[in-house]
Amino acid sequence: MTLEPSPRSELLRVRMAELSEKAGVPVATIKYYLREGLLPPGERTSPNQAKYADGHVQRIKLIRALMDVGGLSLATVGEVLAAVDEGKASPHRILGIAQEGITSSRQVVDEESREWALATVRDLAERRDWPCKDPEDPIIQALIGVLCAIRDVGHGWYLDKLDAYAEIADRTADLDLEGIAGVESLERIIEIAVVETVLGDRLLSVLRRLAQQRASKAHFARLAVDDE
Amino acid sequence: MTLEPSPRSELLRVRMAELSEKAGVPVATIKYYLREGLLPPGERTSPNQAKYADGHVQRIKLIRALMDVGGLSLATVGEVLAAVDEGKASPHRILGIAQEGITSSRQVVDEESREWALATVRDLAERRDWPCKDPEDPIIQALIGVLCAIRDVGHGWYLDKLDAYAEIADRTADLDLEGIAGVESLERIIEIAVVETVLGDRLLSVLRRLAQQRASKAHFARLAVDDE
Repeated sequence: MTLEPSPRSELLRVRMAELSEKAGVPVATIKYYLREGLLPPGERTSPNQAKYADGHVQRIKLIRALMDVGGLSLATVGEVLAAVDEGKASPHRILGIAQEGITSSRQVVDEESREWALATVRDLAERRDWPCKDPEDPIIQALIGVLCAIRDVGHGWYLDKLDAYAEIADRTADLDLEGIAGVESLERIIEIAVVETVLGDRLLSVLRRLAQQRASKAHFARLAVDDE
Repeated sequence: MTLEPSPRSELLRVRMAELSEKAGVPVATIKYYLREGLLPPGERTSPNQAKYADGHVQRIKLIRALMDVGGLSLATVGEVLAAVDEGKASPHRILGIAQEGITSSRQVVDEESREWALATVRDLAERRDWPCKDPEDPIIQALIGVLCAIRDVGHGWYLDKLDAYAEIADRTADLDLEGIAGVESLERIIEIAVVETVLGDRLLSVLRRLAQQRASKAHFARLAVDDE
């Protein structure tokens, strides 16, 4: 595994216009990120000018990727980055913030469904040795929401495969952790975790789609349907 | 595997107010779905009244789940359902429409990055026997976008694990297909595929998060960080 130089390295020293060009983002957007505290201020060289470093380019690209590809809101990105910069919260906690931003759903779940889903989650967690102490944890809440939605649309049979999907999730998580094992800096570990989680979700979902095309080709070919 | 009764069954015959109650959606929303053609009209019993069936309840729940949990826009849900109802398009094509709605991204990719990513995708597809004929296919485009984003934020090393993730995707896809093998109705197959894809993405992402907590616990415990 080869890691690129840390985003905090200071090889580059450019003005705002060049920063905009290198990061591929308009000057007005960069100024907005600076005002909102998403981007640390540059090194002031005169009352009206500042110089920016490699870390700024990387940070802007990270903001854009989390928003454009990961689908996070600007507010969630801000919270995640603040927690990363503070360096006090654990990776778990920061991932929780990012995850809350992605998994928040407007879905309403009735009491009976919630109890059924929570029992299902608890049983699953016990079988797989997963943490499930706090039912108010946003990830547990998100899982409850998905299970209820699947049952609610009349596809409860899908959940017969829950354990098989959970096993795949365990394999995926072990693979996710491989990238982090050798890294020493906590800040870097957290950034890796956020990237792997947010962009990794998208990667896995798209790979699954291609694999489904492969897997379904044989099956659907039997049915006489027009493909255009 | 036990399948619930088909959403087209006509056991229930209720008026609008009851339909609203059973589906958990306001009357105004149901009227909007009817006007937009997302919901087929009820059976007219007088000039001002119509009765609705089980299929209407299920259809409304499906619309809500695709929007609230799956994150599809109303327009995308409309296109997906129109294709399902028409019954002419193949499951592939309909999944393509749903997927386009989820994977569309505002991301801009430069020419060099696009070529690198397309070559990476082509190599991967060849190794795994995945379809990759049309580079303009929305799924291929989405994969190109994710690969570029990961490299762009300086985490290109993550892609060393691409083949391992692709293998997991293949296992997932085989599992996905298991639910469809015994079903005969094309309309039902398509609905299953949409549910499995849109809600399944969410399910897998949340399961992965819990599995990550299990996997990372041991690793992060070594680092002295405050978890609150």
